[in-house]
Amino acid sequence: MRILGIDPGLQTTGFGVIDVAGHALTYVASGTITTTHLARGDLPARLKALFDGIAEVQERYKPDCSAVEIVFVNVNPQATLLLGQARGACVTALVSCNLAVAEYTALQMKKAIAGHGKAGKPQVQEMVKRLLNLPGLPGKDAADALGLAITHAHAGAAMARIAEATGTARKTSGMYRQGRTY
Amino acid sequence: MRILGIDPGLQTTGFGVIDVAGHALTYVASGTITTTHLARGDLPARLKALFDGIAEVQERYKPDCSAVEIVFVNVNPQATLLLGQARGACVTALVSCNLAVAEYTALQMKKAIAGHGKAGKPQVQEMVKRLLNLPGLPGKDAADALGLAITHAHAGAAMARIAEATGTARKTSGMYRQGRTY
Repeated sequence: MRILGIDPGLQTTGFGVIDVAGHALTYVASGTITTTHLARGDLPARLKALFDGIAEVQERYKPDCSAVEIVFVNVNPQATLLLGQARGACVTALVSCNLAVAEYTALQMKKAIAGHGKAGKPQVQEMVKRLLNLPGLPGKDAADALGLAITHAHAGAAMARIAEATGTARKTSGMYRQGRTY
Repeated sequence: MRILGIDPGLQTTGFGVIDVAGHALTYVASGTITTTHLARGDLPARLKALFDGIAEVQERYKPDCSAVEIVFVNVNPQATLLLGQARGACVTALVSCNLAVAEYTALQMKKAIAGHGKAGKPQVQEMVKRLLNLPGLPGKDAADALGLAITHAHAGAAMARIAEATGTARKTSGMYRQGRTY
């Protein structure tokens, strides 16, 4: 399974692509989509750049699913509004490519990658490097995006284990009920 | 020229299409795109519904340009973030159809439609009905969207007059300077 992670931002959106086979994670690609070459005030053009950039990444790497960071309210309400619109453009790009979108908070990602929610950016970069056997540290935005993809891989594995466990539990309780009722 | 007005909202996005020929405005279509049939928590699906709805409107009515309301920070920051993402999906839908996007605040729209910025929703509905010779009142979201399209038509006419006036002024001042210098 190939997962595309997206760390949305109006100036810089990070992306990271990994392959998952059982417990093995393989790095495929990562990078950033920037809008800094566009006029700050031309929000429609900047949202289009994010949309087109993600569509291009999807077209090139053909992921099976995606994971996007849940953004939070900023101290500056105007910044919150802009970040919201950037995330809206990113999520829209993914769903318009018919990709399933999983959502994780930065806290969930840090816990999954570094074991605790207070991990700083350098720690996330270092752990992503180790988990994917990278030759060097990934950039901060790319590291967050790869971290989201890894979080989704872990969550997928956990969900599979839960499904397996509850499948067994259901079968057992079904047998038990059958034994009691009939 | 055919203008598509969009009043973005996560639950209900209003759209309105008008034709402009000189000073004459003609109603073409209006309505709403709603996401209330979808699970509240499934934000990606709701953003996709907005994106697909606007793409469908664009496909059906083939507008030449669009006008979108500039949304504002809400008292509730979480609502601001959601509205931001909805607007991001709407603007992305427009630009990905290669439509130019003009942006107006609700205040600018109300001034253009009703003559003052404190006009209430019923007043906007009434004025839109009169300006477009509608047989009945449009719905609130559709009225705002039609109001934005009308605002853009007025702004376009004003810009044309300014261009004409400055064109004349430039010619005049050019002649004047020429007269003085040589």
